[in-house]
Amino acid sequence: MPLKDNVALTPPMGWNSWDCYGASVREDELLANARYMADHMKQFGWEYIVCDIQWSEPGAVNSAYRPFVPLCMDEYGRLIPAENRFPSSRGGAGFKPVADQIHAMGLKFGIHIMRGIPRQAVHAGCPVLGTDVTVRDIAHPSSICSWNTDMYGIDSTKYGAQAYYDSIFALYASWGVDYVKVDDICVIAGAHDLYSGKGEIECIRRAIDRCGRPMVLSLSPGPALREQAEHLAANANLWRMTGDLWDDWAQLSEMFDRCRTWQGVGRPGAWPDCDMLPLGHIGIRSVEHGRSDRMSLLTHDEQITMMTLFSLFRSPLMMGGELRDNDDWTLALLTNPEVLDLLKNSDNAREAASGSGSVIWTADHLDPAGRKDGTLVALFNTWTTPQHLSWPLRLENATVRDLWAHESVPYNGETIDAIVPTHGAKLFLIRQCESI
Amino acid sequence: MPLKDNVALTPPMGWNSWDCYGASVREDELLANARYMADHMKQFGWEYIVCDIQWSEPGAVNSAYRPFVPLCMDEYGRLIPAENRFPSSRGGAGFKPVADQIHAMGLKFGIHIMRGIPRQAVHAGCPVLGTDVTVRDIAHPSSICSWNTDMYGIDSTKYGAQAYYDSIFALYASWGVDYVKVDDICVIAGAHDLYSGKGEIECIRRAIDRCGRPMVLSLSPGPALREQAEHLAANANLWRMTGDLWDDWAQLSEMFDRCRTWQGVGRPGAWPDCDMLPLGHIGIRSVEHGRSDRMSLLTHDEQITMMTLFSLFRSPLMMGGELRDNDDWTLALLTNPEVLDLLKNSDNAREAASGSGSVIWTADHLDPAGRKDGTLVALFNTWTTPQHLSWPLRLENATVRDLWAHESVPYNGETIDAIVPTHGAKLFLIRQCESI
Amino acid sequence: MPLKDNVALTPPMGWNSWDCYGASVREDELLANARYMADHMKQFGWEYIVCDIQWSEPGAVNSAYRPFVPLCMDEYGRLIPAENRFPSSRGGAGFKPVADQIHAMGLKFGIHIMRGIPRQAVHAGCPVLGTDVTVRDIAHPSSICSWNTDMYGIDSTKYGAQAYYDSIFALYASWGVDYVKVDDICVIAGAHDLYSGKGEIECIRRAIDRCGRPMVLSLSPGPALREQAEHLAANANLWRMTGDLWDDWAQLSEMFDRCRTWQGVGRPGAWPDCDMLPLGHIGIRSVEHGRSDRMSLLTHDEQITMMTLFSLFRSPLMMGGELRDNDDWTLALLTNPEVLDLLKNSDNAREAASGSGSVIWTADHLDPAGRKDGTLVALFNTWTTPQHLSWPLRLENATVRDLWAHESVPYNGETIDAIVPTHGAKLFLIRQCESI
Amino acid sequence: MPLKDNVALTPPMGWNSWDCYGASVREDELLANARYMADHMKQFGWEYIVCDIQWSEPGAVNSAYRPFVPLCMDEYGRLIPAENRFPSSRGGAGFKPVADQIHAMGLKFGIHIMRGIPRQAVHAGCPVLGTDVTVRDIAHPSSICSWNTDMYGIDSTKYGAQAYYDSIFALYASWGVDYVKVDDICVIAGAHDLYSGKGEIECIRRAIDRCGRPMVLSLSPGPALREQAEHLAANANLWRMTGDLWDDWAQLSEMFDRCRTWQGVGRPGAWPDCDMLPLGHIGIRSVEHGRSDRMSLLTHDEQITMMTLFSLFRSPLMMGGELRDNDDWTLALLTNPEVLDLLKNSDNAREAASGSGSVIWTADHLDPAGRKDGTLVALFNTWTTPQHLSWPLRLENATVRDLWAHESVPYNGETIDAIVPTHGAKLFLIRQCESI
Repeated sequence: MPLKDNVALTPPMGWNSWDCYGASVREDELLANARYMADHMKQFGWEYIVCDIQWSEPGAVNSAYRPFVPLCMDEYGRLIPAENRFPSSRGGAGFKPVADQIHAMGLKFGIHIMRGIPRQAVHAGCPVLGTDVTVRDIAHPSSICSWNTDMYGIDSTKYGAQAYYDSIFALYASWGVDYVKVDDICVIAGAHDLYSGKGEIECIRRAIDRCGRPMVLSLSPGPALREQAEHLAANANLWRMTGDLWDDWAQLSEMFDRCRTWQGVGRPGAWPDCDMLPLGHIGIRSVEHGRSDRMSLLTHDEQITMMTLFSLFRSPLMMGGELRDNDDWTLALLTNPEVLDLLKNSDNAREAASGSGSVIWTADHLDPAGRKDGTLVALFNTWTTPQHLSWPLRLENATVRDLWAHESVPYNGETIDAIVPTHGAKLFLIRQCESI
Repeated sequence: MPLKDNVALTPPMGWNSWDCYGASVREDELLANARYMADHMKQFGWEYIVCDIQWSEPGAVNSAYRPFVPLCMDEYGRLIPAENRFPSSRGGAGFKPVADQIHAMGLKFGIHIMRGIPRQAVHAGCPVLGTDVTVRDIAHPSSICSWNTDMYGIDSTKYGAQAYYDSIFALYASWGVDYVKVDDICVIAGAHDLYSGKGEIECIRRAIDRCGRPMVLSLSPGPALREQAEHLAANANLWRMTGDLWDDWAQLSEMFDRCRTWQGVGRPGAWPDCDMLPLGHIGIRSVEHGRSDRMSLLTHDEQITMMTLFSLFRSPLMMGGELRDNDDWTLALLTNPEVLDLLKNSDNAREAASGSGSVIWTADHLDPAGRKDGTLVALFNTWTTPQHLSWPLRLENATVRDLWAHESVPYNGETIDAIVPTHGAKLFLIRQCESI
Repeated sequence: MPLKDNVALTPPMGWNSWDCYGASVREDELLANARYMADHMKQFGWEYIVCDIQWSEPGAVNSAYRPFVPLCMDEYGRLIPAENRFPSSRGGAGFKPVADQIHAMGLKFGIHIMRGIPRQAVHAGCPVLGTDVTVRDIAHPSSICSWNTDMYGIDSTKYGAQAYYDSIFALYASWGVDYVKVDDICVIAGAHDLYSGKGEIECIRRAIDRCGRPMVLSLSPGPALREQAEHLAANANLWRMTGDLWDDWAQLSEMFDRCRTWQGVGRPGAWPDCDMLPLGHIGIRSVEHGRSDRMSLLTHDEQITMMTLFSLFRSPLMMGGELRDNDDWTLALLTNPEVLDLLKNSDNAREAASGSGSVIWTADHLDPAGRKDGTLVALFNTWTTPQHLSWPLRLENATVRDLWAHESVPYNGETIDAIVPTHGAKLFLIRQCESI
Repeated sequence: MPLKDNVALTPPMGWNSWDCYGASVREDELLANARYMADHMKQFGWEYIVCDIQWSEPGAVNSAYRPFVPLCMDEYGRLIPAENRFPSSRGGAGFKPVADQIHAMGLKFGIHIMRGIPRQAVHAGCPVLGTDVTVRDIAHPSSICSWNTDMYGIDSTKYGAQAYYDSIFALYASWGVDYVKVDDICVIAGAHDLYSGKGEIECIRRAIDRCGRPMVLSLSPGPALREQAEHLAANANLWRMTGDLWDDWAQLSEMFDRCRTWQGVGRPGAWPDCDMLPLGHIGIRSVEHGRSDRMSLLTHDEQITMMTLFSLFRSPLMMGGELRDNDDWTLALLTNPEVLDLLKNSDNAREAASGSGSVIWTADHLDPAGRKDGTLVALFNTWTTPQHLSWPLRLENATVRDLWAHESVPYNGETIDAIVPTHGAKLFLIRQCESI
């Protein structure tokens, strides 16, 4: 088995700083969310705390990037945490003190990086650690990110390219990083070849395999190219199926198409990713799409739709809201054991039918040995009024459980059906009774 | 196994008269090149001598076609060699005396034809041999070649169409032809449907299968359409991936794209073709692109790039230069046994990476039983300055051989790397040492 | 004033053999139709008798071309009439005897030609009259007609090209030809550049100007390119706006779009052409579109629509039916003096409005001195039921005449309106009474 | 009249360092070429000496750009000459000493710049002269050149953008620059909007108009977009119709299409540009297309074709070869007064006809008062064999002069015709004799 598949055997679950703090999260905020997770969510499977973009930028104040400003960096062109935001990194400690504290809570620690090499390192001519070349020899002259000015892409065919990636992952391993989200790589916006990050993905894969520490590799942004599924699955643990997802029904309802496109691809160690959950208190220091500090703009029924689809599809789940500000609804939504169970004990999710204003998905439920022991049926109402939806399923001696209501419901032996609220969902587990 | 796949089990190797003599090659030149091949190249696998276009045109003096002039033809509208250029064909002998002499040298003989029926036969109303129709009944009223006035295309759906193709291939079989290059058929320039030669390709396939003599079928010109790969492979032994290739770096460097497009398609009996090798003394009686008599304008490093790519890709190899004028460099280039070995003992060539000004290919090396016994790595530098290129390959107890230098090179167990000259290539074979 | 504009000062009116006899019309049929025209139609302005395509083909029996068959030709590659079909042409007389007889009736004579040089002349290597080159030197190697195998296009830039066209028009002048319809030239179907006949059009223009006899130049087929209007008008007297028009309402109703596209372009000596009138007895020896011998399939109202639009637009009028078989309706339709008057005494026709199932055109009526003396309004009903259509026109002391009914109609001083039958038309002339 | 149109009233003529020295030309080479021009070419109209790309790069050795290396720059982010290559620029003199010497020879001085702001200035945060902002505020975050790493594009809508351009043109004016070639701006390769340099073009136009010194503005590279002709002509004095032109017939023969596309656009002050003349000794320190030190690979006839087309089209003429190494042929080609006369005294050049392997252009010749006093006809043979080409021109009492042969030729009053060599051209001036 490739080293890659020692991690993320089920879809990772965690918290990411982007939806609430943009590019400006601070050490205290990371640790406080970790503390909350350890206290309230860990027992339901949540485990990763991920620090998102630009932790090297001392002046970041929200989700907007300041173009061309200096970043904190070592002499080998490797970015390091901005000390004003991450005080424990002083003296060259990097993220190790933060990681240590998170590990002490029984959780895991992740960071975000951009593919490539800092432009400031290239213009400064930094050496590549352990080689006789400089980063100028490996920087791609014209491969840049279209939405952030920090980095040049790396030409993976150049001598020194692998060594640079090896050097940064060695650093991350020394810090105790468990999860790396690499950005501007899954698809490269505006590039002639949207998947021209392929070579860098392979470099990163090798660098992780060599760094001496297991790490989950997550690729962003999407939408990933379906025809690259094999390469993505061979190299990454998760990859984005969409652009950034926010608390917007139009975006959420497109996810049905994405999931149908990618159904059947996910497997242990390789998961198509629906993106973060914009739930609870978000936008605290974010200006994305002109929105700001708010509770999620999704209705409760829309939130149930999201959790139902993502769980059944077995997407990674990364909570985006400030955990400390969870209201009871949000915390309950995120800690429903019967729904989260699908991430570990289901398979073969497929769109079974789609109608005008309705979508139906089915999946297998598995026992601890991995054998099918039940059928899952999700009824989604994407229309603007409540609807009575049904799915034909003829079984004898079967029981039906509503996984959101935590109760059994009557079953006529012929169809699974329910009144589904506007933009809402129903999720049922059907099991046959054991014969005597 | 189809009859087609009794020939060209590995990519054919030979000489073609076009690059040096255009449309005007003579019998003595064919035989002299055959003699040279038998004496100097046959032991390295070279075996075909191919007479290119317009051997029926008595007045051809270079590569320019004289529009509308009479061609030599029999009473059934079948073109025959011009006696002034091929004296041994006198008395109706056709190409048999030439073929016999080439066979006596242990080589094989090929000819070029244009798809279709001579226009002069159509206007004369010649009968189709063995039928009661005339060539007027089978000529396509508006399918012509855009660059040569000799022929009308044939409407393959007309009664008599197959009979005409049967009649010419019976003639070629009687001459002892081993290889037929059919032109204006692989893609038809300017046609609304570029693959409208499909019906004629099938007629030709049947005619060969019926003619009683194995013949290699080569289709020109390209670029063949990738989406027709299955049909091409089912009917032809080789087909062109490009337009005419000349001694021009811009053209040669496009071949990397073509090879990537067609990688994985070639198999015994069916080979995508990179076109002839414009090496050595060419343009002797050619005016193509306004160029004339010259030694190949490719640098030595560009020539190594060409031979490396074509061999690794397993393209047919058809030398274009006048063999008798080979200098030592050219002959050595064409007879490097470690490189030519790839045509027979390699498989699964793929573009592994491409960067800015660099391309890397890998392939499997096979033992005589067809089992993988090594890895081939080619580093190509398409940039205008030398570059240090590398490919990560971690193997224990492995040795690396430079196939152009004929020597072993050091290996650090981690990467295959080298300084590659401008427009040049390095080709390495990596094998693990046998354990004791 | 260019020589060109000494002819066709108003849109030509005549008869053409294509719609009834295809490629097979005979001398007796031409003369009999001329006789009819002289007796019954000449006084209404009809004057040209045009012999359509392939008068050189002895074996033509209907509208289908026999591919590649020999044509009658002189030693300079100039086509001449087939003697079996045109007996008076014997002894090298060409069309002169036919033309003489038609002239004696007070009419004019026209012929059809294909652009270019007969392929059989090219393969035979005929000399170009008055030069030291042969037709092989001027034939375009790859410019052919997509629907007829008789000719190669001529490369107008080649020495001898103009001389060949001069030679055929000198011949036509010696025969007494008054009108030449040149085919496969106005747009060239399937050509990369649809107007690549431009150079040949200019050669033909010069050849006519030099031949010593005024001739009308008509270009086919269409649809001509609107952006070439200036060049067309500078070189030709009429050119087709459409493909072949037959007795089919779908085709006829498209003519409203064509006329709108070309409105404002026509002027003395230069007329966009709506194509022949498929009226009366047609298809006698025609197999076009699978139809055969019949009276026109257009309803009487559709025929009125056609005559109204064509006359108001000032299209040339070429009757397609066998004149001798005209019924009273057809003859009356073709000889309504108040409608045909528009070809000579109107101007500025424009689409004034178009609705759902209706089109309205207006034009100026002119007095003999060319001053506006009235307004023309045509109401067209393209819908499937009768409709009440109207056009606002406020005039005091005006009278309104229905030009088809030959009667005055009431006028309310505000609108021109009428019940218009299905697929029919109303045509009104509104004039102000002279003040006293 | 706009300031722009005080210069380049006829197409500029000069010398540019790119074709022979790539990015590496030195002061002594500029001055020596200027000396040669003053001595041998000035009297024929040649006047500009243009220093091409990367005069700020101390380490440039040929035409390959070294990615990311430091450039010479002042504190306001303005590039200045590299002192090792331009010794007279020491002490902040910039190009003034070079310009002074060139002016003393009676010639004019030009420089090449890339659009935008040096990346190193952006990463350093240089102030924009005369403003309170830095170059980081005006650099476009994602508009870069695809083939050179020196600059970021400027967002012309940002405060400070115009000030920066003003600051560099003020510097150039202080140096005495007469001509500026701005690169990566006419079309921006790979950009979503190829003409996204539009805003920067307008900034540059304003900066020149404000700088106090007339300067010719030349835009590169092409192919410029035909639909932007009006904007280009309103802002620039010349702009490229093509990519880089080298000594390659395939490229040169494409120029016929480009010229047809742009015919009729040029006017005093605004000239579509065919690019430099790759004639004489070129490639001295160039590695473009893998070629190196050579005499032009164009045949003499191809060179005549180039000079004929460019002069008739009235393209700017910028000689690319090392002038001191001109052979007699090259110098004579560049100093034919009868051909160069067309740049000043002709107009209305148009493609008159094009055939298979032939193109014919015509133009008016003008007298000193700008009235037509003759017709120019150019016959081009783009085929691979000599051809007899002709153009019909009927004039009485006219004389024909061959402008390359400097002699009168016979005229039959009907056609201009000639045997034109392979890839060659004939250029004739036809004038009517004055009546007595």
